[in-house]
Amino acid sequence: MASVQDITVSACINLLSALAFLLAFAFLRLQPINDRVYFPKWYKKGIRASPRSSGPSVKKFVNLDCRTYLRFWNWMPAALRMPEPELIDHAGLDSAVYIRIYLLGLKIFVPIAILAFGVLVPVNWTGSTLDDIKDLTYSDIDKLSISNVPSGSLRFLAHIIMAYVITFWTCYTLYKEYQIVTTKRLRFLASENRRPNQFTVLVRNVPPDPDESVSHHVEHFFCVNHPDNYLTHQVVYNANKLAKLVDKKKSLHNWRTYYQTRYERNPKKRPQTKTGFWGLWGKSVDAIDYYTEENEKIIEEEAAEREKVMSDPKAIVPAAFVSFKSRWAAAVCAQTQQTSNPTLWLTEWAPEPDDVYWDNLAIPFVELTVKRLLMAVAFFFLTFFFMIPIAFVQSLASIDGIQKVLPFLKPLIQKESVKSVIQGFLPGIVLKIFLALVPTILMTISKIEGLTSLSSLDRRSAGKYYLFLLVNVFFGSIITGAAFQQLQRFLKQSPSDIPKTVGVAIPLKATFFITYIMVDGWAGIAAEVFRLVPLIIFHLKNTFLVKTEQDREEATDPGCLNFATYEPRLQLYFLLGLIYSAVTPFLLPFIIVFFAFAYVVFRHQIINVYDQKYESAAAFWPDVHRRVIIGLIISQLLLMGLLSTKSVAKSTPLLIILPILTIWFHRFCKGRFESAFKKFPLQDAKIKDTLERATEPNLNLKAYLQDAYIHPVFKAVEIEKLGPVEDEESNTLVSTKRNSRRGSQTASAGMSPEDV
Amino acid sequence: MASVQDITVSACINLLSALAFLLAFAFLRLQPINDRVYFPKWYKKGIRASPRSSGPSVKKFVNLDCRTYLRFWNWMPAALRMPEPELIDHAGLDSAVYIRIYLLGLKIFVPIAILAFGVLVPVNWTGSTLDDIKDLTYSDIDKLSISNVPSGSLRFLAHIIMAYVITFWTCYTLYKEYQIVTTKRLRFLASENRRPNQFTVLVRNVPPDPDESVSHHVEHFFCVNHPDNYLTHQVVYNANKLAKLVDKKKSLHNWRTYYQTRYERNPKKRPQTKTGFWGLWGKSVDAIDYYTEENEKIIEEEAAEREKVMSDPKAIVPAAFVSFKSRWAAAVCAQTQQTSNPTLWLTEWAPEPDDVYWDNLAIPFVELTVKRLLMAVAFFFLTFFFMIPIAFVQSLASIDGIQKVLPFLKPLIQKESVKSVIQGFLPGIVLKIFLALVPTILMTISKIEGLTSLSSLDRRSAGKYYLFLLVNVFFGSIITGAAFQQLQRFLKQSPSDIPKTVGVAIPLKATFFITYIMVDGWAGIAAEVFRLVPLIIFHLKNTFLVKTEQDREEATDPGCLNFATYEPRLQLYFLLGLIYSAVTPFLLPFIIVFFAFAYVVFRHQIINVYDQKYESAAAFWPDVHRRVIIGLIISQLLLMGLLSTKSVAKSTPLLIILPILTIWFHRFCKGRFESAFKKFPLQDAKIKDTLERATEPNLNLKAYLQDAYIHPVFKAVEIEKLGPVEDEESNTLVSTKRNSRRGSQTASAGMSPEDV
Repeated sequence: MASVQDITVSACINLLSALAFLLAFAFLRLQPINDRVYFPKWYKKGIRASPRSSGPSVKKFVNLDCRTYLRFWNWMPAALRMPEPELIDHAGLDSAVYIRIYLLGLKIFVPIAILAFGVLVPVNWTGSTLDDIKDLTYSDIDKLSISNVPSGSLRFLAHIIMAYVITFWTCYTLYKEYQIVTTKRLRFLASENRRPNQFTVLVRNVPPDPDESVSHHVEHFFCVNHPDNYLTHQVVYNANKLAKLVDKKKSLHNWRTYYQTRYERNPKKRPQTKTGFWGLWGKSVDAIDYYTEENEKIIEEEAAEREKVMSDPKAIVPAAFVSFKSRWAAAVCAQTQQTSNPTLWLTEWAPEPDDVYWDNLAIPFVELTVKRLLMAVAFFFLTFFFMIPIAFVQSLASIDGIQKVLPFLKPLIQKESVKSVIQGFLPGIVLKIFLALVPTILMTISKIEGLTSLSSLDRRSAGKYYLFLLVNVFFGSIITGAAFQQLQRFLKQSPSDIPKTVGVAIPLKATFFITYIMVDGWAGIAAEVFRLVPLIIFHLKNTFLVKTEQDREEATDPGCLNFATYEPRLQLYFLLGLIYSAVTPFLLPFIIVFFAFAYVVFRHQIINVYDQKYESAAAFWPDVHRRVIIGLIISQLLLMGLLSTKSVAKSTPLLIILPILTIWFHRFCKGRFESAFKKFPLQDAKIKDTLERATEPNLNLKAYLQDAYIHPVFKAVEIEKLGPVEDEESNTLVSTKRNSRRGSQTASAGMSPEDV
Repeated sequence: MASVQDITVSACINLLSALAFLLAFAFLRLQPINDRVYFPKWYKKGIRASPRSSGPSVKKFVNLDCRTYLRFWNWMPAALRMPEPELIDHAGLDSAVYIRIYLLGLKIFVPIAILAFGVLVPVNWTGSTLDDIKDLTYSDIDKLSISNVPSGSLRFLAHIIMAYVITFWTCYTLYKEYQIVTTKRLRFLASENRRPNQFTVLVRNVPPDPDESVSHHVEHFFCVNHPDNYLTHQVVYNANKLAKLVDKKKSLHNWRTYYQTRYERNPKKRPQTKTGFWGLWGKSVDAIDYYTEENEKIIEEEAAEREKVMSDPKAIVPAAFVSFKSRWAAAVCAQTQQTSNPTLWLTEWAPEPDDVYWDNLAIPFVELTVKRLLMAVAFFFLTFFFMIPIAFVQSLASIDGIQKVLPFLKPLIQKESVKSVIQGFLPGIVLKIFLALVPTILMTISKIEGLTSLSSLDRRSAGKYYLFLLVNVFFGSIITGAAFQQLQRFLKQSPSDIPKTVGVAIPLKATFFITYIMVDGWAGIAAEVFRLVPLIIFHLKNTFLVKTEQDREEATDPGCLNFATYEPRLQLYFLLGLIYSAVTPFLLPFIIVFFAFAYVVFRHQIINVYDQKYESAAAFWPDVHRRVIIGLIISQLLLMGLLSTKSVAKSTPLLIILPILTIWFHRFCKGRFESAFKKFPLQDAKIKDTLERATEPNLNLKAYLQDAYIHPVFKAVEIEKLGPVEDEESNTLVSTKRNSRRGSQTASAGMSPEDV
């Protein structure tokens, strides 16, 4: 077990590495050449342009103004300066609410930490069990933890009371936060400009009709059943193949540009490529000619496919976007059942056009339920048996394994230095690669489950990833052993023994989790702000592909907040904080530092970097809330298990009340707030309708909605025709029509190097 | 363990007792004096009248026609003769679907029994483990059960395959039945006559408004938010106190009539009564004078209260019945959320007027959630600790207990005969009384939970009662011991051991459950048709209270199918059947006899006796379906546990698939059918609206709906004023407008003694 010294050393190392990342970031972000990596959001918004006209050419790449380097910490206060309403306006409600999760962490844990250090630490410290047992090696941290209190002591009363305080405080904070987020969401939806999805409902599982086309069938159905309200509808084309062709065309185009650039730089030698897989084998050909030819081929192919999709009635899937004359009518249609067969004519709120996941719009009910079953089984096996393929690959990646499979490498790997690298790093790297793949696999599973919007896919994957992390990282660290071994153990233990087994291990693992928080949390956040991968990719693209300003625009990849990956990881810190606050409060400051640091960094990122693909108006909050509640309940059960091994017999009935109350609190909050995230109330719809009718009596809504929901591959053509100005307007992200005063304000908040 | 002989004897005894009941029933039902006990439904419908005018007076009381006695079994084929559409018309869909549960039992178990006797019985019989172990005492029944198969035998493959067959057959039957019931429900709703609840929505939690009354507030809100559709509304008065006064008045009136009748029969002595509790103590007074006086007092009190309720604005609760111009609009309002605060302006389908539970219409959201929590805890304690008060009362009711509490009884209870009665019967009677009270207690719990319709109260209580029976009767019989001891044991055992512990005990308990089926099932059903309690009560009332024909009408108590009590008990037979069909198929014939017998009896009862209070259009079917599924899953887990103790190591993975598939099947059915029981599709509403508009263009809907939803105590006054003819018309049960031909047909189905 690690002592205070060990922890201090580890903290210093991690702090230094975090500091190194931060320094590198502070330096690199001031270089104009990196401007598009560290401030892409402003470029996307059109507020910032490449520094091309003014000053000498060196200044275009390197920042020579020394004063700016002295104030390189300024991005932190700058990130905090933008007020929240403006932040919502600038980055969208999703992002603004996402960083509130970190704030929630601070709100929960700062008061608990103060109380715990004031009450529990003295109680534990003076418990002096560990002093009495001379044989035991223990560290000072353990003297601060519950391990130092003798069995059966009355001191445990303090821990029980503390558990109550933690529960009530957490619930109170969660309630307040749910209330705030709900209000923000409702206000956001009420103040939103006109959007196509407000008037539109996604209709799925349109039954086949022998006499009518899908389009006619939809029109007739809604004309009959919503006679006063139906306006128009758009059918959905199965353009998945076309979309693939478009992607392929883009890639071929990029390759051609790349080889052309290479040829221009070095005109002596025409670049060659191979026709096989990834250009690795096959016949060598002239690269530029090859890609030009391929490009032309694919353009023809695409045109044929496009023609086919538009003319073939079989390319129309049995789903449609139906628009209504008012928001009220759309709200009505989305919330009601249309026919007596609940598997046909399914209506739901249309996601906003950018949020639609087009591949999943046409899955019949039976197929969907079968897919869900298979995916549930797949997820179960992934969670509990994912160590098996890893162990297999690790055995292959060992010295013996490599010698067997690739015998010609034998002389190389016999070298001592190579050997030690393989033995020391390879298994770890294999594990890391597998772990990094997990969110992608989970997203694939969610996609197969048939969700129709990107935002719901994100939420669903996040839920799965949380369970995965809970089983494999949290329980996996406490009860060392693979997940299926845990499962086996749990199945063989009695339900009342499981909290005991885990609970007893909790205080012993405190130092491990402190290290985990520093490595994964602190350093991870610092790496986040540094953006190493986008930095490299941008410069590669900039070197080889960018020719025009528009190319550079396309090479600018702001990325987005990956909710499905970030949020579940974040929830682990809530879980750790809640568990250790009554057991080893020494862990809390580390978590608080993480939350505070992450809050600043992510606030900076959403202001300057990330550009969200869609806006779901914080639809994820019920999930966040639920997962914190799950963490709270786990912490209560584990404390119960821990105390029952400490001969505090009467603690169980006292502590069993807490999970019951917590579950009740969850149900209460669900009833009170959740529907604001699922349904759209008629009153609000009516108010907006009335207002709009008064202010814009001559609005041609039909024209406005006509082409709102067309597959992006068809849209792309129009945009190409119309030019980028139209693109900006048809972009339905949060409106960027800010007046000039506010524009300059936010630009200063963005801390461009010129301003400093 | 009981042998075949024991079972045969027990079966004979139970058959004889059932036969005695049936004979008594066959005899008594032919007596005209009991006509109103055994054919009350026909009286309620006005098709049958008391035999008062024709024939000699003896014939009014006793049936002297011998021929009818010879054909006394005729009621059985007669009960089966009425075709289902007519049955639905006559008794309502609820009753018609309820008896389909018995039919479902037959559909599931008859093929399984045939298969099991064809396959499993030979496999078990030739297993001959029990023959080899000479020491063990065993019965022939055990030779037919799984106990007779040696451990690790390949014969268990037959049981595993059988488990698959049972699962698939049960699921198939359940699916078919769900489909049929859904179709019936939809057809019933579509063919229904105009009813107030089709146009009406119950609005609860109307927020208080400082400037407006509830009535105005409701009107304004719906005028604004449903401008084209709002028609009218009715506020709800808090008339609970008034209803109590009306009840009290009725009771006092009955007592006065009783004493007057007594006085008239014996004019020499004026009856006396005591003023205290239940007339047991207090001052002796002249009974007739006393009750006349009391009656007048209460009439005044009632008038004052009625005045107060109608004029006091505080007597209006924040709830209302809002009616719309069309069924479509009502369907829309019921299915949508009205405001951004989901705890205000809650809308739901209005129950039909007779189905409203008036006491619960005005509970605020927070109060409701707190009540639900408390009731969940109360239900938990009732289920798991209900043996404690029973044990306490039983200890009081023992010889020693009685001697201590009531020492003056000592000489009496020292007698040997009294002693043996107390020791032998008293504990059993105490348990019976407590068990009989359970449904009432559960109904009270459900009422406190705040449901707003009688049908939903019934469904909710049924759910609770099922859990109670599962824990206390099923598991209580298998693992002997009180429920909280079971709980303790289960908490200390591992999850994989629980099915083992229970599974091993299953074959041993077969004979016990066979006896249970005969005593509780066969004899219980025979007692059901005999109607002992209503018979006694009717004759008491007839003797002491009935003076006019209208009094006799009121004394006729048809009762109703008590879904909350009957259905959960019935589910126990499904559970037993599913569990034993792979273990001891010998139990199946007993269950099949029960289902067949119960089907005939209940078909007779719903045709001739029961008069349902409300019509929910089979809204309970999803619950029935779910509980059969629960039974199926329990049976699969127990078989898994049982086989794992028989050294059939590889059976677990083979059998674990079954519960997963079953749960998936349940979800599939839920998605496919359940919404037909919860929501009203817009298309169906529109069709009915259009049809009505075409056939009755001048309908004054507002007048029709004006007084549909007034509290029954106010209605009673109007009925009193208008006379009994209006009563018949305002009765919203299934319409009884049958033409004369059909009337005579159904009367013959009812088998009146005159017809035979």
